[in-house]
Amino acid sequence: MTYQYAYPHPAVTTDVAVFTLQNQQLQLLLVRRARAPYAGSWALPGGFLDIREDLEACARRELLEETGVSDLYIEQLYTFGHPERDPRERVISVTYYALVPSDRTRLHPGSDAADAAWFAIDDLPDLAFDHAAIIELARERLAAKTLYSTIIFQLMPETFTLSELQSVYEILRREQLDKRNFRKWILGLDRLEETGAKRRNGNHRPAKIYRVKNPGLIEYIR
Amino acid sequence: MTYQYAYPHPAVTTDVAVFTLQNQQLQLLLVRRARAPYAGSWALPGGFLDIREDLEACARRELLEETGVSDLYIEQLYTFGHPERDPRERVISVTYYALVPSDRTRLHPGSDAADAAWFAIDDLPDLAFDHAAIIELARERLAAKTLYSTIIFQLMPETFTLSELQSVYEILRREQLDKRNFRKWILGLDRLEETGAKRRNGNHRPAKIYRVKNPGLIEYIR
Repeated sequence: MTYQYAYPHPAVTTDVAVFTLQNQQLQLLLVRRARAPYAGSWALPGGFLDIREDLEACARRELLEETGVSDLYIEQLYTFGHPERDPRERVISVTYYALVPSDRTRLHPGSDAADAAWFAIDDLPDLAFDHAAIIELARERLAAKTLYSTIIFQLMPETFTLSELQSVYEILRREQLDKRNFRKWILGLDRLEETGAKRRNGNHRPAKIYRVKNPGLIEYIR
Repeated sequence: MTYQYAYPHPAVTTDVAVFTLQNQQLQLLLVRRARAPYAGSWALPGGFLDIREDLEACARRELLEETGVSDLYIEQLYTFGHPERDPRERVISVTYYALVPSDRTRLHPGSDAADAAWFAIDDLPDLAFDHAAIIELARERLAAKTLYSTIIFQLMPETFTLSELQSVYEILRREQLDKRNFRKWILGLDRLEETGAKRRNGNHRPAKIYRVKNPGLIEYIR
């Protein structure tokens, strides 16, 4: 079976940059390509759009098929369309970025990809296609968004201390924050609530454990 | 001539929401469609991607062909891909938004569109396809960006008074700003310079005329 058109059509794919935090590092999910082109190289999870499929549905489906990861926060990033970005044919990639809490990072690689793994963002392997550029843009967007939205809560496990939350901000912004100012600011957003529990860490005073109120809500902040 | 593929391919278009400011209003550029579907309806300038053409090049080319507008600030907005958004076939639209200074809004509609015109954003006609949703998203993005970047300078004519600049902020943010605070803040960004000239407006004191330093630069601000 072939499909005919009166003028040339590009192929359309989706690719997803999935981030998490593990071991005080920002980490990225990659799959090893089983097939040419770039067989054996690492790449973002992704693949070709089904003709009746919504774009975000395609991104979620490919991610699930290739890595077993589902049920995450996902947002469209940018559409990459350089005419030479794929050696097979003209391929437009609608890219997404996604955030997974650190307590939900278990992988179940599928048959479409040879392998799937988390990599520290500052120690990535060689990447297929223009995926290095996609990742760089996703990382910039994420860092910028921490300044003006509450997107960062999407990276947090269900409960956490304020020190843990502060260290996530520090990792994404690549700067140290003043502890007192941070606590005043973050509690002033009125998005956290105490669980009533406390956690002891070494010889420090036990720290209050918080959860996010209304975790699905991402707000602009000033 | 027909083009054959082993699996179905979508068509890809670009559409552009071009904004300007005229008569103290945010205005949007629309074209009247000459052909079906939606013949006679107003729509964003746009059209099908040539198979060897870069996405942004396509957006600029269609805009020029349909309206005569060129040489503007343009940025990718979002990719719209609902499976039913075009009655002809599956069409993915990579959308852009663009800003034109108020002193460069002359139109020269081309043969591809029957007509082109500026409309006040709060008084738009019925629109083809999902273009109303694209415009709404573009407007939100523009309003949000005024809070954390200097994108607004892209809307200004070559020279202007601080009162004129303040009114542009007020239109985009849909709120009144305090004159003294605004002046202190905007001059503190160190992006404006005095031209040395002044302008008299009615019985007010003559107002200093400014220009933007390094007009192509868009910075994040805190």
